[in-house]
Parts: sequence; structure tokens; C-alpha cells
Amino acid sequence: MGEAKKYVYLFEEGKAEMKDLLGGKGAGLAEMTNIGLSVPPGLTITTEACIAYNLNQKQFPPGLEQQIQEKFLVVQERLGKKFGDPQNPLLVSVRSGAPVSMPGMMDTILNLGLNDETVKGLAQQTNNERFALDCYRRFIQMFSDVVMKVERDKFEQVLERYKTRQAVKLDADLSVESLRLIVEEFKQVVLNATGQEFPQDTQKQLMMAVQAVFDSWDNDKAILYRRINRIPDDLGTAVNVRCMVFGNSGNDSGTGVAFTRNPSTGEKTLYGEFLVNAQGEDVVAGIRTPQTISSMQQEFPGVFDQFVHTCKILENHYRDMQDIEFTVEKGKLYMLQTRSAKRTAAAAIKAALDMVNEGLITREEALLRVDPAQLNQLLHRQIDQTASLKEIARGLPASPGAATGQVCFNADEAERLGKGGQKVILVRNETTPDDIHGIVVAQGVLTSRGGMTSHAAVVARSMGKPCICGAESISIDYAAKVFTTGGIVIKEGDIISMDGGTGQVFEGEVPMVEPGASQELGQLLQWADEIRVLKVRANSDTPEDAKKAREFGAEGIGLCRTEHMFMAQERLPLVQQMILAENESDREAALGQLLPVQQNDFYEIFKAMEGLPVTIRLLDPPLHEFLPNAEDLLVEITRLKYTQGAAQEIAAKEKLLYKVRALSEFNPMLGHRGCRLGITFPEIYAMQARAIFQAVAQLVKEGCKVFPEVEIPLVMDPEELSLLRQQTEAIAQEVMQEQGVQFSYLIGTMIELPRACLVADKIAEHADFFSFGTNDLSQTTFGFSRDDAEGKFLSVYVERKILQDSPFVVIDRDGVGQLMKLAIEKGRAAHPHLEIGICGEHGGESNSIEFCHQVGLNYVSCSTYRVPIARLAAAQAALRYPQKRA
Amino acid sequence: MGEAKKYVYLFEEGKAEMKDLLGGKGAGLAEMTNIGLSVPPGLTITTEACIAYNLNQKQFPPGLEQQIQEKFLVVQERLGKKFGDPQNPLLVSVRSGAPVSMPGMMDTILNLGLNDETVKGLAQQTNNERFALDCYRRFIQMFSDVVMKVERDKFEQVLERYKTRQAVKLDADLSVESLRLIVEEFKQVVLNATGQEFPQDTQKQLMMAVQAVFDSWDNDKAILYRRINRIPDDLGTAVNVRCMVFGNSGNDSGTGVAFTRNPSTGEKTLYGEFLVNAQGEDVVAGIRTPQTISSMQQEFPGVFDQFVHTCKILENHYRDMQDIEFTVEKGKLYMLQTRSAKRTAAAAIKAALDMVNEGLITREEALLRVDPAQLNQLLHRQIDQTASLKEIARGLPASPGAATGQVCFNADEAERLGKGGQKVILVRNETTPDDIHGIVVAQGVLTSRGGMTSHAAVVARSMGKPCICGAESISIDYAAKVFTTGGIVIKEGDIISMDGGTGQVFEGEVPMVEPGASQELGQLLQWADEIRVLKVRANSDTPEDAKKAREFGAEGIGLCRTEHMFMAQERLPLVQQMILAENESDREAALGQLLPVQQNDFYEIFKAMEGLPVTIRLLDPPLHEFLPNAEDLLVEITRLKYTQGAAQEIAAKEKLLYKVRALSEFNPMLGHRGCRLGITFPEIYAMQARAIFQAVAQLVKEGCKVFPEVEIPLVMDPEELSLLRQQTEAIAQEVMQEQGVQFSYLIGTMIELPRACLVADKIAEHADFFSFGTNDLSQTTFGFSRDDAEGKFLSVYVERKILQDSPFVVIDRDGVGQLMKLAIEKGRAAHPHLEIGICGEHGGESNSIEFCHQVGLNYVSCSTYRVPIARLAAAQAALRYPQKRA
Repeated sequence: MGEAKKYVYLFEEGKAEMKDLLGGKGAGLAEMTNIGLSVPPGLTITTEACIAYNLNQKQFPPGLEQQIQEKFLVVQERLGKKFGDPQNPLLVSVRSGAPVSMPGMMDTILNLGLNDETVKGLAQQTNNERFALDCYRRFIQMFSDVVMKVERDKFEQVLERYKTRQAVKLDADLSVESLRLIVEEFKQVVLNATGQEFPQDTQKQLMMAVQAVFDSWDNDKAILYRRINRIPDDLGTAVNVRCMVFGNSGNDSGTGVAFTRNPSTGEKTLYGEFLVNAQGEDVVAGIRTPQTISSMQQEFPGVFDQFVHTCKILENHYRDMQDIEFTVEKGKLYMLQTRSAKRTAAAAIKAALDMVNEGLITREEALLRVDPAQLNQLLHRQIDQTASLKEIARGLPASPGAATGQVCFNADEAERLGKGGQKVILVRNETTPDDIHGIVVAQGVLTSRGGMTSHAAVVARSMGKPCICGAESISIDYAAKVFTTGGIVIKEGDIISMDGGTGQVFEGEVPMVEPGASQELGQLLQWADEIRVLKVRANSDTPEDAKKAREFGAEGIGLCRTEHMFMAQERLPLVQQMILAENESDREAALGQLLPVQQNDFYEIFKAMEGLPVTIRLLDPPLHEFLPNAEDLLVEITRLKYTQGAAQEIAAKEKLLYKVRALSEFNPMLGHRGCRLGITFPEIYAMQARAIFQAVAQLVKEGCKVFPEVEIPLVMDPEELSLLRQQTEAIAQEVMQEQGVQFSYLIGTMIELPRACLVADKIAEHADFFSFGTNDLSQTTFGFSRDDAEGKFLSVYVERKILQDSPFVVIDRDGVGQLMKLAIEKGRAAHPHLEIGICGEHGGESNSIEFCHQVGLNYVSCSTYRVPIARLAAAQAALRYPQKRA
Repeated sequence: MGEAKKYVYLFEEGKAEMKDLLGGKGAGLAEMTNIGLSVPPGLTITTEACIAYNLNQKQFPPGLEQQIQEKFLVVQERLGKKFGDPQNPLLVSVRSGAPVSMPGMMDTILNLGLNDETVKGLAQQTNNERFALDCYRRFIQMFSDVVMKVERDKFEQVLERYKTRQAVKLDADLSVESLRLIVEEFKQVVLNATGQEFPQDTQKQLMMAVQAVFDSWDNDKAILYRRINRIPDDLGTAVNVRCMVFGNSGNDSGTGVAFTRNPSTGEKTLYGEFLVNAQGEDVVAGIRTPQTISSMQQEFPGVFDQFVHTCKILENHYRDMQDIEFTVEKGKLYMLQTRSAKRTAAAAIKAALDMVNEGLITREEALLRVDPAQLNQLLHRQIDQTASLKEIARGLPASPGAATGQVCFNADEAERLGKGGQKVILVRNETTPDDIHGIVVAQGVLTSRGGMTSHAAVVARSMGKPCICGAESISIDYAAKVFTTGGIVIKEGDIISMDGGTGQVFEGEVPMVEPGASQELGQLLQWADEIRVLKVRANSDTPEDAKKAREFGAEGIGLCRTEHMFMAQERLPLVQQMILAENESDREAALGQLLPVQQNDFYEIFKAMEGLPVTIRLLDPPLHEFLPNAEDLLVEITRLKYTQGAAQEIAAKEKLLYKVRALSEFNPMLGHRGCRLGITFPEIYAMQARAIFQAVAQLVKEGCKVFPEVEIPLVMDPEELSLLRQQTEAIAQEVMQEQGVQFSYLIGTMIELPRACLVADKIAEHADFFSFGTNDLSQTTFGFSRDDAEGKFLSVYVERKILQDSPFVVIDRDGVGQLMKLAIEKGRAAHPHLEIGICGEHGGESNSIEFCHQVGLNYVSCSTYRVPIARLAAAQAALRYPQKRA
């Protein structure tokens, strides 16, 4: 066997770049040590040691213990103290430190190295027996809890008993004698609970603590955190063993945490808290109210200047806003930790911009400093999660934004109240086109069934209203006008609040955080626009939404869904008349009435987007979506039958039911929809094409520049597109002749079925553009019905890491991505100038946008409120993968 | 410009191999001419001329008319007759002749060349004015109908008038004088109807006839025929212009058709019909009853011997059974046509075997002579399509076989009648697991809704019972116990017949053709087995079916679906109990009761297949398929509410409905099913694995050789298979230890989702075998729900040739096939000895089997009754693509 691996580093042996090996904390301590800051000496045990431990049935890798001892000798020599030395004992803190910040893992153990002997040494050294005993009892309590798994409560009971006996309220008021007795009782608690003596061997204490840190890598909280934050399970954690310094050594000592800039606003002022004569845990425990960091200036003027200077050094060194822990021991400043500071979106933007102005970072770096997903904070109202909240249900976060209002179970009633100026939340099992007028006036929509693509979700998103879907714990009794959830009964008129960005429902009114889009954001996005290669369009169905999208910087509309126009309340009867038509002339008549309405829709949208391309998708959903629900009809018919209803009425409803049934499908997602409607009912697409082209002609006559792109959905074979292209071109020709104007247009297709990807070369022969519909493409590639999967098994899949992410949130690069690449390759081979975009919801998600950039799409299209996110994410992708694009 | 293309061939200039250019008929005439048989001289206009005509806006290609005239001169010289010569006129027949036989195209025009002058010449030549005039009036009638589109009826009216006037019944009894007047009136009819004189110019007659043949390529009947028989639209047709010979020249003349062997049985005897003193059309018209071909021996002994000899020459020459047309003119035999004879499956097999014995063809050729799909005739009872039938409805041919019985709308009633010895057809909108006992006793099942994968279809196929699904014209009124279809009312108890192989429903009892599997078939399949590379397995779910499959030559079971075991009537309550369990222990209890039942199922199936592999698929369908229907419950609850039902009963049903709803899905096909159940309810798959392995252990102890293959369905990611493989292996280990036996087994997966194909390399790391589930793979690749597509848009797609075939019948090589190839490549790269098969319905369809052979599968698995078809098709594939396989 060769030499053992190096598992232990002195702080001075590491550096910032060794984060993977030493963890974030360890790398920070090493870096601070090496740039000459005052850091208590110590050592870091590597993540590799943790990985080896986990792979080796929880056994330390060979050589580890010896390496720790060897490095420890160096530290002891430097300080002139010795571990376990009763005269001059060395005490250490032991902390976990993973490569990425991970709350939920083992926290600090302070004062390790104390035992029945060394506690005396500490008392002598500090000339403070009370302090030494208090350190010891805290150490026993903390060590036994974290390392030996003794219930914390058992120690608290002892403490309470002594406090009662002494008739004092605070731990700090306990007498020396009490503390001495408490220490003895604590050791007895450990023996009773574990059958083991509390370890007096300081080396054993250390190794047990290291093992506990390693084990904490796989505790439930850590696993959950990694799952939620998509952190790989095989990184492992490092362990930092650092000499203790005591902020509680007297009034010339203290401890604090500080941010180099304000983490809420980004303002360039030190921000943090400080406590005189205290240890770090006192700040966290909140027993005493900390002072603001600036107050340190009065208390320790010299140290404060040194601290300010150190902060500057650290910010300049790391070229980013830092989150710093420090301690002052008898007037001497020690830096204990530094890391990149967590910050709000507003702060991230302001700090990045300021740093560019200060010459600290480049524009490119500034762009990479802001998490695109965080921008949501600036664009939607949110519930203030720091407030005390009573969550009563949770569903799918179907449309972001927060709302408060009185519960209403009925769209008509919602409309009445809403028009009367009241704020309502519409609560339904699911919504249908009949509920649209209720959704329009509601502050938000909450449904107990349905998924991210349910009617409620799609309509709410298109209106920019908060929506939560599939909140399954909610059981609605429409007749009694109440809903129950987890034993709580909410009546009509009761106030609830909801956050569509998180899926949470709360009882009563709760505090909100208002959106704060800023000038700074505008500046940042302007820089993003200069760098990104991907264009950004919006998915918008209405002129209002289109205008908003344009304000947000959309460079066109990538998806305008015409079915939402069909669902508008006053048009639905016409649409139903068209569907129920018994013959072609009845159908033509209904379509004839829809034509001017559609034409006006398109006119307004084209006008709002003057000078920019607008992709209009022809009718996509199956026709039964426009008809009443079969079950409702069935109940109604049964009721009429058993209550002597009029035979004529029964017959009419039965006839309607027959038609509904004839159109109903086992798997509507894979049914008679998309271009299949266009093929079987050519008159529907013909009407839509005519409406588009007549609107175009009208605008051209008015001198307006329009760039219409007609999109055929759900194509799986070139022949479909070829047929429908011919029909559409013929109508364009007719309109040009009738109107006496010329205009140009594109005809293309959604690529949203695996087969479309596989025969993309043949399809490209008939297409001017492709637009990936990654929602449906993911559904068919995985064989997942999104509406069914999300409420049922998908969460289990993500929880058990069978899938890293829901494929409906982040593009699945392995499967769906492979098909997309194939389609792009084949499509461009057949048609080199083919314009290719994406209009699935992935078009607004950073990771997916990065993939779209890498595979060479021309644009992404996303919902209006995600346009800024997409602009920034596209710029980041361009910065990270510059070589990938021409 | 170069020289004009050669568009016209004398018969002696062609040969058999020029079928594409000269059409089947033309190539046959050429070949017969060249091997020295007596064929009336003539010429063939090529298919290329037809194609050029169609591409050239229905204009003859340059040079065509001149070439016809030139070749015509040669023919005239040979006969010493001249076209249009009043003294010695040459008459010709003009017939279409495509490269593949195509009924529905233009039929023969006889006697072309007659006009007011030549008719006199014919009268003189034949010394029979009546004959000449009759030929002329027939010619006018035929030519005007076919070429000039004059309604046939108008001529019939004239004929009727003269027959009435003369008081005769038959055309043949019309006097010469009448015929002369009729000719004049016919010409007037043409003038009135078309504004044109009947053409007297014989050259013009000829060119008009040629054009009519070309045009008939695109008539509706021809287009329909090509669609049904999958004949490309761009082949074009040839035109044969042949000198007339007259079988109606007197009693030394005649005409006939004959097969060189019996086309029904294959027996080696001449088979056909013969009419003395008649023309071909008389045989077809059925005015006189033809004699059998053997009767010719008495009438024309010399000619008969010559004919028998000629038949032998032709069979030897073509090395296949021939279908021959001939005419005898004044004692001289003329061959008019020869082609490969259409034959029944039984005849095809017998003839092929006999020809091998006669040394005429090889075994390999014999194997290629039988259409595998035709074998269905030998394996299932069918309705005799030659009988006079009253079709009242048509649905999807969901399970082959024919049945007659009284209509019954209810499974309980069906069971009562069935057990009482009555034959019933169960007629339902759709069936559910509650109907199984009714299906068991029924002769056949007919449903008005649902597709080829509906409950009724799947269950009926597994039982080998006839089934028709989705017969949409049928409207059932359960209350009134009637169904109506196209205005016909069928009551409960009325007799209907059905053919599950064609999807036809008939009123009353109809004649059937019994299946006739023969020794000859056995011989042929034995040869097939020696040649094929693909193994053939069966999809069987019961021991009875497994035994049958083995008899049919199955080499294992490729798919045993365990859900059908769950659906058996006595088990369903246990399954429902398991699903409705409120906690894990209730669920375990129900599963505990299912375990021994499943174990016994597997025991029997393994035993029946001793020595052969058996692939058992773990539970696949979504759980709600085992529960009552939500609509039925809803109607029942509503009824109870409005009829003062017991509150307790209502509450219980509402609770059940709640559970049904909680489990119900928007798109069950893409929902919570397959291994997703195995992941979320591990105890279900654990029970099944235990049942399998306990059965294996039991059999091993009994000394029986079993080869179990456990199959995990609907895998889309390697992690799913990895998890479930671990669980299954652990159970196998447990059972081996508990039972004290060792056994081996394979664990593999269905490949039935696009993503599974895309990540097949990773999946293969955890799989011993892959089995392509091409039903679901086609559904997801196309985005087609089979149950929805088949009844709605798929027929339109096939009709308009957007798709050549339903992808559920023939594997779509462009899309699905591409994914399969990818999966095979990736799977074998990661795991070189991976066993790969197919168990979708394509495994029993010839074209798909050929593809499976080409891409290198190890086996195909198909429904039991298709095993012989698959064996033959696999042999044909091996003969056609020998180089493709190792």
C-alpha cells in the first residue's frame, strides 16, 4: 500500500479554491488565515475523509486519526497550550462544513476538550470558576445531545430544578455550587441514558465529535435539504476543528455577525449585530437583545476600525458581499467565518450594480451574481414568510402572487361581490369556462383538484392572478357553503390568504411583501440584453397581456393560444353551437359569427406588438373542453327523472349528454386535438387563418408593421403540416386578393411529440419555424400525464431521487433534451435557416434556458411575468457557454 | 430533344419480368406469346405512358399516338386484316392492366373497330348479320357507357322497348330488323346525351378508349381499392389492345376461365367454367349457366387436351398455380390471360406443399407462397361472406372469430342463460370487471364504445372469444332492453351474429365457415421453424391459454398479464379491499389473501410451460380500473337522494365515490400505473414477486424445470428498475432460504415509453431482458390514445393517406422503429447478451415481424392464435433478409 491520503489540513495549508475538499467554512478559514487576518488556529478534516467513512461502513479511513493528532501537535505548539492539559488546556470548537451551505446538518460543538480536570485549568486561566463550570455544563449538554443522542429535555429538567431551588430565572444566575452539582447530575444523566460514562478522554471526545459530523451528513433534515436544493448526495462534509476564543471573557470581549452590505436592500453600509461579553450561541439564542453593529464603534472604537478594515479586505478579496462571524477576546479581534452573503433579489441587484460602479467586478460578473428565479420577488406580491402564519392547506403553486379575500364558492356570487368592490378568493373543486367571469373579479383562485395545466391554472396565469391548484386536503361542500381542511372549517365569507408562488393557503389576513421592480433591475437587464444570444418572447393571449410583455422586454409573442379566446363567456355559446352543429352549414354559420370576433382579437394583439413577430397557434384543445361536464348533466338528468321533470327537458339534456359522451375521451391529452381537429374539421382552422390574415390586411392598410407566424399544433407527421400549410396559404392568397394588399407571413409547427422529433427533417420541409412545446413533449416522452402525475406519484419520485427534478419544471436533458437535439439537428439539416424556439413553461426557467442556449435555439418564450427572468438567464447562459453559439 | 420513349410494345416484344412496365395482363400475354402459346396478336401501351399522361394534365405524351399506329400496322399485316376496313375489318378489345391486379378499374371494351361500315364487313365475314349487329349494339352500349359516360340505363330502356314490342324476353331473341333500329336509336341516345356523334373513326375510337383506361386509374373505386390494399398511387396502368377472337362464332366455339388447381382446396385438378358459343362477358353475366371445365373434354376433346397441356406448360413456366382465361374460335384455342391464382389459405398451403413434392418449387419458395395473415382463416371460425348477409352495424375487429346468439344486455342475465345452455351475445356500452362472469359464458361480446385496448377487447382476446368494440352506430337503452342501429331495433333475446375478425354485426343467424387447421399447415410450419431466426412466444394469461399456445408452437410466454388474474370475479373484492385499505395493515391483509391465489396461477402456468421461459409482467393498469365506475355511483347516489334513500347507504356510496374520484385520472394511460404503482405501493409488487418465486420453488421441488422472467412495466428511468430489481432480488433470496431450494430467474423490463428507448443504455445495466411494448410505445410516440384515435380521427388519417397504416396494426418504422433501433443499439452496447423481444400486438403481424427480424430481436410474442402466423412470417423474414442476422 502507498502512503495514506492527506485527510487533514492546517488552516494555513488550504485556500479559497479548495472548497470541494475543505468545505465552504474550511476554505474560508484557510483563505482568511493566508491573507493575514487574525483567525484562531485550527485544522480541517476533508470531505474525502467523510466520503471514505460513508463508503467504508461508517469506519474512519486508515490514517485519519493519526493525521489529526499530528496536525494537532502543530496547533498546540503554536499556542503553547495542550489538549487535555489540566494546567493549560486547549479547547476547540468542532463544526461541520460542506462544500455548499447546508443548514440542517450538525451545528457547532463548543468548548470541546473540557473534562473534570481541564475545567479546573480553565478556571485558573480565566480566573473565573463560574465561567469554567458554565462552559463545562454547556459542553456536556451539547456534546451529549449531538454526539451521544441524549434527549436535550433531560438536561433542561435538571437545570429547571436547580433554578427553582435557587429561585432564579436565568441560567446565568445559577451559583457556582449549583453549577458544580449540575455538572455531576449531567454526567449521571448521560450514564443513565446511554449506559456509558461521559468521555473524559479529550482525544476520544474529538473523534466522537468528528464521527457525529460525518453521520449528520445523512440525517433526515440534511437529506431533505439536499433534495429541495438539488445538492448531490455524494459531496460529503468537511469538519473544522478550531481553537476556542472566548467572546464571553469580560466586557472587553464580545461576538457578532455582520454583512458587508445590507442584505435586504444592497445598500453599502455594514449591517449586523453585536453582543458584548457573549459567545456566538448567545446571539443566536436571542436571550439578550443584540446591538447593531455600528454600536461597536462606541464600545470598542479601535477594534471597530480594525473590523471595518477587515470587512473591506474581505470584500475586495472575494469581490463579493460577505457574511462574517467574528469574536473579540480581551480586545483582540478574531475572524471566525466568512462567506458569500445570502441576499434578496433587490439587494443582489443593487450590490452588483454598485460593485460594477466601484470597479470591483465587471458587468459580466454582475450578471452572474443575480439568481434569475429570485426576480420573481420583484415582480409579484408575496406573503411575508417572516410573519407568524397559520398555514391551513397547500397545493400546487399554479400562478404566482399573493392575495387575501373572502371565500366564495360560486362564480356568479364572486362577480356580484367583486363588482361591489369586495375582495374574494374563488374556491372550487375545479373551474370550467363557465367560471371565467368569477375568476376575472377574484383576487385569486384556489381549487382542490387539477394540476398546473388545469383550466384554473392556465386562465389565472394568463390573467396574472394568483392561483393554487390541487389542494387535495380541501373538501368542499357547495350546498353547505363551507370547506374543511385538516379539521378546520372555513365558511363562505371567511377571510383567507394565499400565495400562488408557494402554494400555501392561510387563515385570515396576513402581511404581504409588495413587488419592487426597480431602475436597477432595468439597468441589469439592459446589460443582459447586450450579452444574450437567445431572443426572449412571451406567451400572451390578450392585447393587455401583450402590452405588459412588451414593457417587460419581450421581443415578440412566441405563443398566442386562440382557445382562450374561444372560452370567453360571451363567445362560448357560439363555440358550442359550432361543435353541436348537425351539419356543415350550421357549423359554417356559427364559425361565421366567430370570425369577426377572432379577427378583432388578432388585430389588437398584432397592433400591440407592432414591429415584432407574433406566433398564433391554431385551436389546440379537444372540443369537449368547450362543452358542459358529463357528470353534471348526468346528475341533472337523474334528478329530473326522479322528480317528475318535464320529458322535453330531459330529452334535450339527454341529447346534449349524448354529444358530450360522443366527444368525450379516455385520454384527452392524446386524443382528438391539435392539428387532428384541423384535419378532420378543416373549416375551423380555415376560419382562424382567415381571421388572422384579415387582421393583418387591415393593419397593413393602416401602415402598421406586422409579422404573423401561424402555428400548427401537435404535428407528428410531415403530411399533416403539408396539408394544413396548403390550406392556410390558399386562404392568405384569397385575403390578399380580396383586400388588395400584400403581406408576408410564416407557417410553422409546434414540436411537441416524440415522433415529430424523430421525423423533424421531413417536417422541416414544410415549416418556416419550429417551436418546442416541451410541456406536451415531456408528457409523452415520459408517459406522464402532468395533471395526474403531480398530485400522485411525481412528488414521491423527486423525494426518492428517482428524478432530480420534476420534468415539468426543469427540462429533462437525458430524455426530452435528447429528442430536442435530434429535432434541431434534423430540422436544420433539412432547412438551414429554420427558426427554432421553445414555448413550453420551461422557456422561463433558468436551467432549461441554459440548455436552450447550448443546443442553439433562436428564442425562448415564457409567460409574461417570467420575461425578465428569461432575459437574465439567457445572458448567464451566454456568459457560461460562449463557445456554444456562433 | 432525343428520341421519344418507347411507349408501345407488341406482345412478342415483352416478357414476364416487365410487369411494372406492361402491367400484369400485358406481361402475361407477352410471356405466353413468347413461349409459343396461341395468343391473339396485339400490343401493350406502357404504364409509363399513363404516368406521363397523368403528369401532363391528361394529355397524351408526344409520340404515343404515332407509336400505336406503327405497331398496329405490324399486327394488321400479320392478320391480313385492317382496322376500319369495311371489307375485312380488324376488331380489338381494349383492357386496362396495372402492375398489380386491381378490380374497380376500367374493364374490357370488346369489338372496338366497329362502325356503320365495318359492321357490314363483319356480317359478311361471319356470314351472320344478326351476330354483327348484336356486336355493334353491344359495342356502342359499352363504349358509350365506359368512355363517353352515357348512363347505361338509357340504352336498357331502348332495348326493353324493342323487347316489349317484339314480345320477347331475351336480348338474343331480338330480330335483325330490331337490332338495326336499336343501333340507330343507340347512336341517337349518344348524341342526345353528349352532344357528340358516336365516333365512326376507328382510330379515334381507339384513342378515346386508351384515354378512358388512363382516366380510370383515378376513379373513386380504384383509389379506394388502392387505399385498402396499400397500392402506391403512382404506378399507373398499362393498356392492352388485343385482336378479337369470337367464342360466340358457333357451336365449335366457346370461352372459359380455369384454375390450374382447385383454389379452395389446392387439389391438383383443373377447376373452372366453360360456355359453348359465348363471349367472356356471358360467363361473367351469368345469363347462361356455365359448364364445369371438365365437360369440355366431351364437347371439344382435341382442344381440351391441348388446353390441359397448355395449363401444364403455364404452371411449369410460372412455377405457380395459374388463373387462366381462354377462348375457342372455330375449334382453335386462344389464350387470353394468365395470372397467379388467388386462393384460400388451405389451397395455398396444399398447392405449395404439392409443388415441393412435384419438384416444381423449393421449400423456401413454398414458405414465401403463403400469406401469413391468411392463416387466420384456418384458425378461427368466420362468417361465410359468400352468403347473403344483412349487416346492421360495424365496429372495431377486436378479437377474431364468429358467433351467433341471442342479445343480452346484462352480465348476470347472460350468466343465467349461458349456464342454462343458451347461446348469448353480451351487448354493452362498455364492459367492466363486474361483467367478467357474463363474458365467460357469452359466445361473443359487442360494445358500442371503447377501442382495441378496452376492457372488453383485452378480456375477450385473452379468452379467445369473438369481440367487436366501438360499434358507434349502436345505441343501447338498458331500461327498455333494446338497441337501435341505423333505424333497426333489436330486442333482448333477438338473434344476431358477429364476426370479430371483420367487425361486422348481422341480424339473425348466418352461415359460418369452420376453421380447418391441417396436417399440411403443420408441415409448412415445421419448415418455417427450420428457417426462422426469431423465436416465437405467446401472450397468455391463463394455464389453458398457455397449453393452447404450446400446441400452436409457442416457445415460451412473452407476456403474462397479472391484472387479468386480479379481475376474476371472486378475486375482485379482495383487490378492491386492498385498494380501499385505509392503512398499511389492512392492505397487507388483503394482499395476504391474494398471495396464495396468485401463487397458484403462476404454478399452473409455469407447469404448462415446463422447460420454456415465461415472462410475467407485474401489475400494470391504474388501480381505478378495479373499482366501480364513478358515473354509475353518481347516478345511484342522486337516485337515492331524490327517492328518500337511507342516509347510511348514501354516505357509504359517497365515501366510495370519494375514493374512486381520488384515484380517477385525466389521462389514465399516462397516469399512476405500471412500475409507478410498484414504487408507490411496494407491497403490491412484493406480493407478486413472492407469489412467483414460491410457485417456482414448489415446482423446482417437484422436479419441474421452470424459467421465470419477472418483467417490470412502464419503466422510463434506470432508477425505477434498479429499485424494483433490488426489492425483487431480496424476495427471491428470502424464498430460496425459506424453501431451501435454489432457482434462477431473470429480471427485465418493458420498453414502452420514448424515454426508456432514449436512456436504454442506462436501463440495460439493471436488466436481463427488454421486451418492447409497442402498443404503448406507439401511443406515446405518436401522442395517440388508441382508444380515442381509432374511433375518431385515425380512419380519416389512413383514408387521406396521412398515414399508410394504423400504427397500432403495422409498426411505424419511421418513428417508433427509429426509437426501437436506438434502444436496441444502446441496450446491447451496455449489455451485449441482453435478450430483446416484443410483446405488443405487432408481434403477430407480418410486416412488423419482418422489421423485428431486421433489427435483430430475439423473439416476438403474440396472442395465442397468432403464433402460427408469426412462425411463418418469421421464416419469410429470414428468407428475405438472410444477411441481416448472425
